[in-house]
Formats: sequence, C-alpha cells, structure tokens
Amino acid sequence: MKQYLKHDEWCIIEEGLKPEYNEISESIFSIGNGRMGQRANFEETYTGHTFQGSYLAGVYYPDKTRVGWWKNGYPEYFAKVLNAPNWIGIDIKVDGETLDLAKCEVKSFRRVLNMKEGYLERTFTAKMVNGTEVEVNSKRFCSLVKDESAAIRYSIKLLNYTGKLTVMPYLDGDIINKDTNYDEKFWDPIHEEVEGQSGFITVETKKTAFQVCTGMQYVIEQDGQALDLSPYNTQKAKYIDSTVEFEAKEGQETVIYKYAANVTSFNHDKSEIQDLCKKTVADAVAKGFDAMLAEQAAAWGSKWEEADIVIEGDVAAQQGIRFNIFQLYQTYTGEDERLNIGPKGFTGEKYGGSTYWDTEAYCFPFYLATADQKVARQLLIYRHKHLQKAIENAAKLGFTDGAALYPMVTMNGEECHNEWEITFEEIHRNGAIAYAIYDYIRYTGEQEYLIDYGLEVLIGISRFWAQRVHFSERAGMYMMHGVTGPNEYENNVNNNWYTNLIAKWCLSYTLEAIDYVKNNAADKYKALEEQIKFYEYTETNKWKDIIEKMYLPTDDELGIIVQHDGFLDKELLVVDDLKEGDYPLNQNWSWDRILRSVFIKQADVLQGIYFFEDEFDEETIRKNFDFYEPRTVHESSLSPCVHVILASVLGKKEKAYEMYIRTARLDLDDYNNDTEDGCHITSMAGTWMAFVKGFGGMRVYNDTLQFAPYLPEQWASYAFNVRFRGHYIKVNVDKTQTTISNHADEALSLKVHGKDYEIAAESSITI
Amino acid sequence: MKQYLKHDEWCIIEEGLKPEYNEISESIFSIGNGRMGQRANFEETYTGHTFQGSYLAGVYYPDKTRVGWWKNGYPEYFAKVLNAPNWIGIDIKVDGETLDLAKCEVKSFRRVLNMKEGYLERTFTAKMVNGTEVEVNSKRFCSLVKDESAAIRYSIKLLNYTGKLTVMPYLDGDIINKDTNYDEKFWDPIHEEVEGQSGFITVETKKTAFQVCTGMQYVIEQDGQALDLSPYNTQKAKYIDSTVEFEAKEGQETVIYKYAANVTSFNHDKSEIQDLCKKTVADAVAKGFDAMLAEQAAAWGSKWEEADIVIEGDVAAQQGIRFNIFQLYQTYTGEDERLNIGPKGFTGEKYGGSTYWDTEAYCFPFYLATADQKVARQLLIYRHKHLQKAIENAAKLGFTDGAALYPMVTMNGEECHNEWEITFEEIHRNGAIAYAIYDYIRYTGEQEYLIDYGLEVLIGISRFWAQRVHFSERAGMYMMHGVTGPNEYENNVNNNWYTNLIAKWCLSYTLEAIDYVKNNAADKYKALEEQIKFYEYTETNKWKDIIEKMYLPTDDELGIIVQHDGFLDKELLVVDDLKEGDYPLNQNWSWDRILRSVFIKQADVLQGIYFFEDEFDEETIRKNFDFYEPRTVHESSLSPCVHVILASVLGKKEKAYEMYIRTARLDLDDYNNDTEDGCHITSMAGTWMAFVKGFGGMRVYNDTLQFAPYLPEQWASYAFNVRFRGHYIKVNVDKTQTTISNHADEALSLKVHGKDYEIAAESSITI
Repeated sequence: MKQYLKHDEWCIIEEGLKPEYNEISESIFSIGNGRMGQRANFEETYTGHTFQGSYLAGVYYPDKTRVGWWKNGYPEYFAKVLNAPNWIGIDIKVDGETLDLAKCEVKSFRRVLNMKEGYLERTFTAKMVNGTEVEVNSKRFCSLVKDESAAIRYSIKLLNYTGKLTVMPYLDGDIINKDTNYDEKFWDPIHEEVEGQSGFITVETKKTAFQVCTGMQYVIEQDGQALDLSPYNTQKAKYIDSTVEFEAKEGQETVIYKYAANVTSFNHDKSEIQDLCKKTVADAVAKGFDAMLAEQAAAWGSKWEEADIVIEGDVAAQQGIRFNIFQLYQTYTGEDERLNIGPKGFTGEKYGGSTYWDTEAYCFPFYLATADQKVARQLLIYRHKHLQKAIENAAKLGFTDGAALYPMVTMNGEECHNEWEITFEEIHRNGAIAYAIYDYIRYTGEQEYLIDYGLEVLIGISRFWAQRVHFSERAGMYMMHGVTGPNEYENNVNNNWYTNLIAKWCLSYTLEAIDYVKNNAADKYKALEEQIKFYEYTETNKWKDIIEKMYLPTDDELGIIVQHDGFLDKELLVVDDLKEGDYPLNQNWSWDRILRSVFIKQADVLQGIYFFEDEFDEETIRKNFDFYEPRTVHESSLSPCVHVILASVLGKKEKAYEMYIRTARLDLDDYNNDTEDGCHITSMAGTWMAFVKGFGGMRVYNDTLQFAPYLPEQWASYAFNVRFRGHYIKVNVDKTQTTISNHADEALSLKVHGKDYEIAAESSITI
Repeated sequence: MKQYLKHDEWCIIEEGLKPEYNEISESIFSIGNGRMGQRANFEETYTGHTFQGSYLAGVYYPDKTRVGWWKNGYPEYFAKVLNAPNWIGIDIKVDGETLDLAKCEVKSFRRVLNMKEGYLERTFTAKMVNGTEVEVNSKRFCSLVKDESAAIRYSIKLLNYTGKLTVMPYLDGDIINKDTNYDEKFWDPIHEEVEGQSGFITVETKKTAFQVCTGMQYVIEQDGQALDLSPYNTQKAKYIDSTVEFEAKEGQETVIYKYAANVTSFNHDKSEIQDLCKKTVADAVAKGFDAMLAEQAAAWGSKWEEADIVIEGDVAAQQGIRFNIFQLYQTYTGEDERLNIGPKGFTGEKYGGSTYWDTEAYCFPFYLATADQKVARQLLIYRHKHLQKAIENAAKLGFTDGAALYPMVTMNGEECHNEWEITFEEIHRNGAIAYAIYDYIRYTGEQEYLIDYGLEVLIGISRFWAQRVHFSERAGMYMMHGVTGPNEYENNVNNNWYTNLIAKWCLSYTLEAIDYVKNNAADKYKALEEQIKFYEYTETNKWKDIIEKMYLPTDDELGIIVQHDGFLDKELLVVDDLKEGDYPLNQNWSWDRILRSVFIKQADVLQGIYFFEDEFDEETIRKNFDFYEPRTVHESSLSPCVHVILASVLGKKEKAYEMYIRTARLDLDDYNNDTEDGCHITSMAGTWMAFVKGFGGMRVYNDTLQFAPYLPEQWASYAFNVRFRGHYIKVNVDKTQTTISNHADEALSLKVHGKDYEIAAESSITI
C-alpha cells in the first residue's frame, strides 16, 4: 500500500517526481477514450523506470502460449492487445543536451489527471546538466469526440538561458509488448512518410494482419506566433521523426502542439487508413488544441452528469469513486459491439487486454444503470456474436451438438489463456454470460431480447451444462467434477456449489426463455429450433432431470453451504490466524500451500448468494457470510464489492465500509502492490456496484426498482444517479434523510426499505 | 503399434530402409555404455527424417521453464541432458556426389543391434544419382571397457565404378536439443584443433559450464594397408573436419576406422580434458578396432551371464526381454554414484534425461537382483547426497525444520519440472525413496545401511509428511489434500490412498529405523540427533499420532480401497465402454475430460498393494484388482508391470501374459506411438520385475527368498538368474518342473510356492 497521491475531489495529483513509483503513476494517470489509451509516459526522453504503453481497441496479437507439456484442448495462443506505435514522443534538446528528468535536478514536478475535463497535465521545472533551467507544462488527451484523435500541448520555457532549442516530434512503431511470451516483435513495417511538419507510419501485426496508421502534425509557437520552420526529417522502418532547431529566449514560452491520430484496419478498410489518418490529423490541426480541449471537457461533462457519484465529508472516498467511474468510461463507451472491457483497460498489458467473465459479473450492472440501455445491450450482443466460437471451443473439449462454452479469456471468441486449470475448469463463466441476459431483462424489462438473441445463447450454454454434469449412480444425483470456482485459490475441485448452482439456474432460466419465445414469437422459435437442431422434448427432459437432481453441497451441522466437496475437511483457520509475513498469500506462500489452505481469494459461495439473493433468507446469508468472510483474503480485486453488498444486507456497516474503501482506492493506494502493471479496470465497476447496491441497496425485482440506502458514519452525505426504464433517478442520502427524485415525464413506483412509494414525474420524495 | 522388426533371439533387425520409421529405429538401435549414448543415426549425410542425438551422462543444461503465469515455488528450470557434439559423422562423396540414402535408390538395407556383443551394424547397397552403386557396412559401439571411447568401422565398396572417393570425418558441436523451451543453443565454443588425421573440439555448456572435449582420429585402409593421406583440414567455432581424396577401384573395399572419445569436466578437471581426450583417442588407435570389439563382446558376455533371461518357444518374447535388459545396462552400470537412470536413457531427449521416482519404484529391484550389491547401493547414495537439496526444495514450498521433499525430476537434487500439478503435488515420490531403502535392506540384509545413510534420509522424509498432513477436526483424522497420485490422469485430489498409505508407512519405518540405530550405534545416533536437531520425543509422538489417525479411504459397500475422495462419485465406466476413436485417451481426449473420467493412467491403488502386498489378503487384492484393472488404460509405460505381478498372485495367467507382452515389446512394437522420442528405459526394468516377481513369483520376506514360478502357456520354458546375499541363483521353469540351482559355497534356505526348501552349496533342487 502506498499513499503518495494528494486527495482532491476532481483530480488525481502527484506532487514531486517519485522515480520509484513512476510506473505506478503511469498506470493511474492513463488517458483513454474507449478506442485508444495511453499510459502516462513522458513525451520527452526519460531514461528512468518507465513502462511505455499505447493501446488500440481491438488490435491484438495471438502470442504463442507458454505451457510445460502440451495437452489436447490447450489453447494455441494468448491474445494480447498490442503495445502500439508511440505517438506522444517529443524529444527536446537545449543547447545540444537532451532533456531527461532522470538526469536533471528536478526542482518541481506535478502530474495531474483532470477527471472532470478528461486530460493529463504535467508541470515541472528542472535544472539540466548544462545548467539550463527549464519549465515545462504539457497537457494531452485522447479525444472522446473524435476517438481516433489525440492532441498534446507541450510548452517549454528556458528560465536562465537564451539559445538553441531542438525539438524532435516522432512516431515510433518499433516496439514490443513488455508481456511477450517469447520476446518476439509483433509489428511489421508497411509504410513511412514524413514531410514538412507531418509524418505517418503504417505498421501491421504479424499473424492477425491488423494495420495501424499513426500520424502526427506539429505546430510550434512563440509569443503566440507559429514559427516558420525547415525541419530535418528522417525515416526508417516503422519510424519517422522531424527535427527543428530555433532560438528560444530566456523566459520566452515555446509551445509545441502535436496533433496525432491512430487509424486502424479494425475500423476501416486497409486501403483507406492512410488517407483517413491524414484527414484526421488535418482536421485536428484545423480545429486547434483549445477547441478540441473544450469539446473534450464538454463531452466529459455529459458523462459526469449521468454517472457521477458525490460523497461529502470524505475527499479520499470522493476521489476514489470518481477515479473508478472515469477509468471505466475511458475504457469502454459502448459504441462498438466488437469491443469489450479488458481487466486492465488501456493502462497496461497484464491479462492481455482480453475479455473475462468480469464483464458480465461486475461491469455489466454499471453500464446498465449509468448509460443508455443500448450500451449494456452491446455487451450482450458481443457474446451473441461469439456463440459460434463458443460452440467450437466446447467442441475442442469433446462437447457436441451445439454445446457452447464461452472462453475464459478472449479477443475474438476463441479461448486464449495459458493454464488448463483456468480454461478447462473455470467454466462458471458460462453461467455469468447467461446471468447477464437475465440481468438485462430484469433491469430493462426488454423480454423481447430473448427472441432474436438471448434464447440461442441460453440454449447453447444449457446444452453445455447438460453434457458437463454426470450422474453419480451411487449418490443418485448429478454432479460436476474437475472445476475451478470463482475462488481461484482452489483448482480442479468437485461440486463447487457456485458452479453447480449457476448451471442449474441456467437450465431453469433457459426453460423459462423457451416458454417466452414459443408464446410470443412462435415462428421465430420454430426457425431457431431448426437452425440449431434443437430437440426440445429430449433435451429439456434431460435438463429437468438435472434441475431436480443437481447436487448442491451443504452442511447441516454448521448450517452453511459448502464451497465444494472436501472444503470442510480442511484445517479451518481464519484470516486472523495468519501472521504478518503470510499476507498477501500470493506473494508469500507457494502455490500448493495456497491451494490446500482454507483461504479464499474472492467470493465464491457469497458470489452465488449475491447473484440469487432473493432465494436465501437473511439467516442463511448471515451464517454463510460469517463462515466465509473471515476466511477470505480478497486477493482478487473483484472480491470486496460482493462483500460490501452482502454486509449491507446484514447491517454490518463497518465491514461494508472497510471493504468499500479497499475497492474504491485499490489502485490509487496500490493496495495489491501491482498497479504498475496497470489499473484494475473491471473491479472498478465492482466499486460502483458496491456503492449503489451496497450503500444504496438498489435491486430490481418483479419490474420494481428498490432502494435501501444508508449512510456510512464516516460521511456527511452522498448522491448517485441511475437510469431505469426511461427514468433518470437521483438518490441523495444525508445524515437525516433520503431524497429520491424522478426525472422523467411519468411517475415511478418503487420500494424504499421495503415500503412502496410513488414519485410523480419530475418530482422527488424525501424519507 | 508397428511390427516391422524381425524377431531374433539376440539381435534387433530391420530389413529394408523405412524412412518413415527411421526416427523410431534411431531410438531402438541406440548404443550406450552408461557414460555416453548415441542414437542410431547414420554416419554419412542423411537428409531424410532423422533426430540426431548424442548424450553424455551428467552433462546437462538448466533450460528456463515454460509456464503460463509464474507462481511462488515453481521451479526455475527444467534440466536437460544435452545433445552433445556429433562424433559419428563421416561424409562420403563418390565422384563428387555426396552419399545420402535419402537421395539414392536403396537396393538393400539392414540395421542390426547385436545385443550379445554390444554393437550396431548397418549394411546397405545403393545406387547413387550418378549411377555408382556402393556397398557399405558400418559397425560401431561405445566401449563398455573404456567408457570414454567409441569406435566406428565404416567399409565402402564401389560396385560398378573406379574413381575418386572423398571421405570427410568430422566433429560437430554446433547443435541444439530438439527439446528446447526457447530454441536456444546450449553450447559455447572453447577450442578447436585439427591436424593430420585427428581433430578435437572443446565446447562448454551455458550456465552450467560443463566442458566436453570430443576427439577423433581416423585410419583408412585399402587391401589391408593403411593409406598415406594428406588431408585438407578445416575448423570453425565448435567444429572441425578432415577431408581426404583417393582412388577406389571397382569392387575394392575401403575401410575407414574412426576412433572417438568424449571426455568431460563432469569426470575430470577442465585443465585435463583435452590431454585426456587425446590420450584416449591415441589408446584406441593403438589397440585397434578389432581388439576393442573383442573386449566389448567379452564385457557384454559377463553382463549377460549375470542378467540374462532365456525364454524358449517364443522368439518375440525372448527378443523383448533381452532388449530391455540390454538397454538398461547401456544406460546405467552403477559405477558412478552421481549418475542415475533417465526415463529415456541416452536414446532421446524427452523428460530431460533427469531422475524420476521411476528409479526407486521400478529400476531398483532390477539392479538389486542382477548386479553387485554396490550398484543398488549407489542408487541409494545418490539420493543421500541430494538430501540437503531435498530440504531446500521443501523449504521453497514453506516446509521447515529439516523436512525433505525429494524432487519429482532432478539432475542435481534440485526440482526442475514445468508443471505445478507434478512438482508440488506428486509428492508420493518421497515415499518411493524411503521404500527403496527398505527394499535394499530387505533384500540384502544390510541393516547397517541405516546407520550411516538411511536414517538421516528417512527422518527428513518423515518430517515432510508430518508437516504435509493436516488434522481434520471434523473427521478426527489426518488427511492430505492437494496431491497427485501415481495416476497422473487426476490432479490435485484429496486423500489419495496410495500417498496417504506410503506417508504413514514412512513414519512407521522411520520409527523402526530409529530404534535400530539407537540400539546398534548409539553414538552415531546421538551425533545425528544433534546434527539435524532432531527432537525425538516431540517429533515421533506427532508421528505416532499420525500413524494412528491417518485417513485411508475405503468403501464398505464395494469392499475396496478408494483411490481418493470422490473417486466413486464418478461415472464408473470401464475401458470396454470406450469406443475405437477414444483410445489412447491422451491422444484423443481433451485434458479436462481425462481428468474427470474414471480412467486410470497407471496403477495407483494397485501400486500400493504391490508395495505392501504382505499386508493384504488375497480377497482384498482380488476385489481391488477386479475393480481398478478394468478401468486402467496403461497409458504410462510403468503400469503393466505391476499388473503382471498382481495378476500372477491371483492366478490370472492370461491377463499377466497380456500385460507382460505389452511391457516387454513396448518399444520394439511402438505400442504407444512415441518410441521416436526415445525408448522407455525405466519401464524396461518394470519388464524385468514383471518377469521375475510375476512369472517367477520372487519375494523376500523375513530374510527368506521366495519363488512361486509358473510358466505362461505360450512358452516352452524359461530361465532367469538372481543374486541374493552372496548366492547366485538360477531358476529354470519348463512345462513339467522347476529347477533352482544355488551357485554359492553355502546352502540356501528358501520357499517355493510357500514350502520350505534348502539347496546345498553348488547344488540344485527340482520341483
């Protein structure tokens, strides 16, 4: 844990350069717009610790997996969102000496991520080896309005010197991912050109043949006047630069505007990307930095209007929740159904930038409640489009007849992870994908989604479960062996309760969905039946048998659900039994010790209770919470949020607050000592969920929105907004009352703390 | 399965070149002498399928492991016995055309492994592209007498041509292992020299810095006269060659003798190896090929006198058992306590040439009964020398206070495998290492071994088990979670019966050993106690508690032992339920399907019954055999042997014979479709064990040797020899009687079929 960032309501602020934390800051101060993202690397040369990273949505490389001994069914590759061409580079020389903060005496340094307006700013003064003191201010952003554009304003003043200033903006495509399996370079050169003050490089990924054209044009001003420059330009494979030299007077501000664009064949025809890139750069130049930044601020303003959460009386908590929301919208905007949400977004390379079950289990509710309905729908459509691949994926493991196993990790629908205990066994992900369909319909009421998309996915998933279980003659029950539950600190277990439960639920929900589609779109049902060769009678009879006889382990003596067979045979220690040096386990214990210990990485039984809370009485929730929570080490960033929600249900306010702070400031305070790899983007949605479902008590049952808000003692008040079926609802909670307002032209019926209320159109109630 | 080799009692014979099987033959026809080994590659150029391989005992490279995501405790490297410099190469040109069987019309081809005398012979006639017909005969061997020497006699006749013959003997150290993780070269050049008709290269392994000097000298004769040659010599890094050209007359025999040596820093000081190599080559030249070959035949003659098994009435079975015995003695001779038996010996690269539990569980009884007692003792000393590393290995996994976990795979005592489910979990290997001590003492009666070596190892192992079990409060028993049993078609199971049993047995045996040493060498016991900080009272009390309360899963209903928790919950199919395309599972099923299936790769419960047979009544053995054998797919080469032994106990003669043939001809008939990777050397000892303990019924209990021989119906008779406590015993079994002779100067008391007999010195009995 580190606490070197200043608390502020709207900004993330680093005061003073901390070279040892630079890679952490580069993650935290990342900027993005859902189409591209950029770590907070310096524009000028920096020879200290840095992890260069620029990422373009959808552009990936299938890196050969690294396994001990290959076995049948192992994925061929691990997809990685590529570290793409560096578009930010501006090398600076003063009197021939390269400006490099690693070699200067840094007199002041301030890095600010302005979340309100969506830009990164950096200001420093430094004394170079040659004695020159420079003052630099840089601002940059990836445009939310034109999502292939980005711009930098880099200003430099020589404080004690008049003389030669050399500026070299460049584009560099000759880079590798830090996280390669075999240290290969992933990019091939296609084209380079540089002329005057603009330049373009086109590179292509190996194997996947994605092309990217990265372009730049720069303008340099002194005293508000653009300089008339004669650049010296060079180019080589995957690289161009443009060097200009001119005089700068002591105290005079020189401003370099670098306009950049990244245009990819993921979005356009290869034949067009160079022209489009030139046009995009030219448009940006024409608009100018200030106008672009004004647009940016306005665009972020709209986002905040929808999605902001206000906390009074706790600046750290306020900063934390805004940081989470900001990073989520920097990562995914919902405008492209081919995209999804990588666990690190565009802030690092770990986990390959691919899609995990995190999306459905944690991110989905956030987008569902804070954005237009179509955004969450896009996330469902993404999986619908991958259905055929999920069927192929299951077939590779020996499943037949249209059984679909969605991948644990994917870029294009194919499974692409390294480890058998994850890909083969962590099959509960298949349930989360069905659950998101259910969640979408529960929240939006759009039952019709089942007709054109949902049912087909549900049948594929149910077919998988029906083949994946086996009937144990001895027990007279259906069982599921060889799985890994959400708690990845156990592998290859038998009868993981969560997995068995969600499998059973998938079968039941699919039966309901079949009824709905048959009754409401008989023709389409018939067409689907034929298309996927669905033998309703035979298949659903088997499903009903499984639903009836599915084994769900429980323990009568303790009155709890059992995480999986044999769990209670373990040495039943609790986290409080651990000693100082044990914790975090994943950095101190060998893997086998973790596996056989009782300690839980993230909610497993509790994840199931959270998903199907209405099926459990409070006593059951309490017994299970009291048994499992003390054994949970939360070494997955996805764990605390579920605990906030259930602790809130049980009135455990202190526990809820403790867990909330852990998730809200996970990256800002580097709780898990790994933020340098990138921010935990998907768990940021868990923070939102913890807030709104935990403190706000939001639920939807029987088409009715419910709240059960309470205020943590540490705060003066809070406010959040959600959308619900055409209503835009604001919830304000302070120490004395809760006010809920309904911004819509029709009334809203809802429950608050279990009581029915109605809020008239454009009105509010106070409780 | 392939059956292209001719059946013969003493030779392995391939008639006709089968290019598609060449890599299989290269494995099968390998030659070795325990110090070095060489696959049956051709001396001359061959551009067809070939897998070049030359290996030097003890010379290895720690190849960086290949894992998905690193976790604490994972081994750093996978040790690999290196593919060492090619010393066999002799390029031949006729009238400028390179002789290459891949490009010739091969008129006849015969490859013979003469097991009686220990050499490889190859004879062919071929028509070259230029029309020349050549007849070649080559013989080569690695000397058993001078184990750093090898020699080749390569004779060539031009059948229809008189003209220029170009001969180029060479040494090439610029090679890589086929089985590298990252395609790296492992050798650095140190020195090359070539002068006249001899040359030497010295190369060094990266990281481990082993040096190898490989040398050659050649002599060429025509009409019995050595030619006076003026070679053209070249050298480059890691390589030398020597080219001579001369005339050969039609029908005239030209004989090339190439004498080679491999001298390594594993055996000598680096400063000496070049001189020693020169001397070794010179000595070989002085002795001459024929004299060396005569010595070789004599040395193999002595081996056969000790270890031969004769089968009459079944040439295929006879060939099979001799092939197994021959390859075992080519791999390990017991002369160097630092060496051990790699699963592929010197015939391939798979499994890295490292030491596995195969040695103790399968190879140990063979060397114990067919060689001087000191050979088996060397194998024990090997592990004793690694005790400190085993303690370090356990410490890496969090075990303390001198607990020792011997590695699953090792070259120098350090664990060096890729996969967590093997290294962390297949801990039963620790038990096999203790069992070998017990087996040695049981067989030899040398109880004193415990004093100086055995007890220290046993205490280290017992300390491990005492920490590795946990007490389940709910069950009131000690359990062991997260293990992989001998059946590697299951991973990370709980309470594997075999592992729990052998752990419990280790604790008991260590207690016995403590008593013995205390009573017979009190001073040494005290010294050991201090040296290893052994707190007898505390530690052994814990052990006694574990022995008393160890959980060993059984099932009352079926009356069987349960392989591990949950095994009986599986779908209890049998092998007969499998369909054509399913089998072998490891080539047809995805890994997860294998893991959760009931099918067993190799004896697991039955392995335990085999080890501790005297603790089980016949009914128990039968019930377990009848339950587990039909579910065993024997996809480990180590499986059939145990089944032969137990089937023999149960009078299941057909099953025993079927399993025996499978193990005896595993490589000759390429049962598992993988002999091209190398021969299954360690399972060859299982073949011997199956024979002598199965058909011969050999056991030792209470210092008494027992036999219970029976003759498989398919055979006319068989005979085998064993050594036992100074006696040299021959057992002859034919259709009517069993004759056992005692070659020793004292009488032998023994049991045959449960009855007591005494055989006077140098006498025999017939039953």
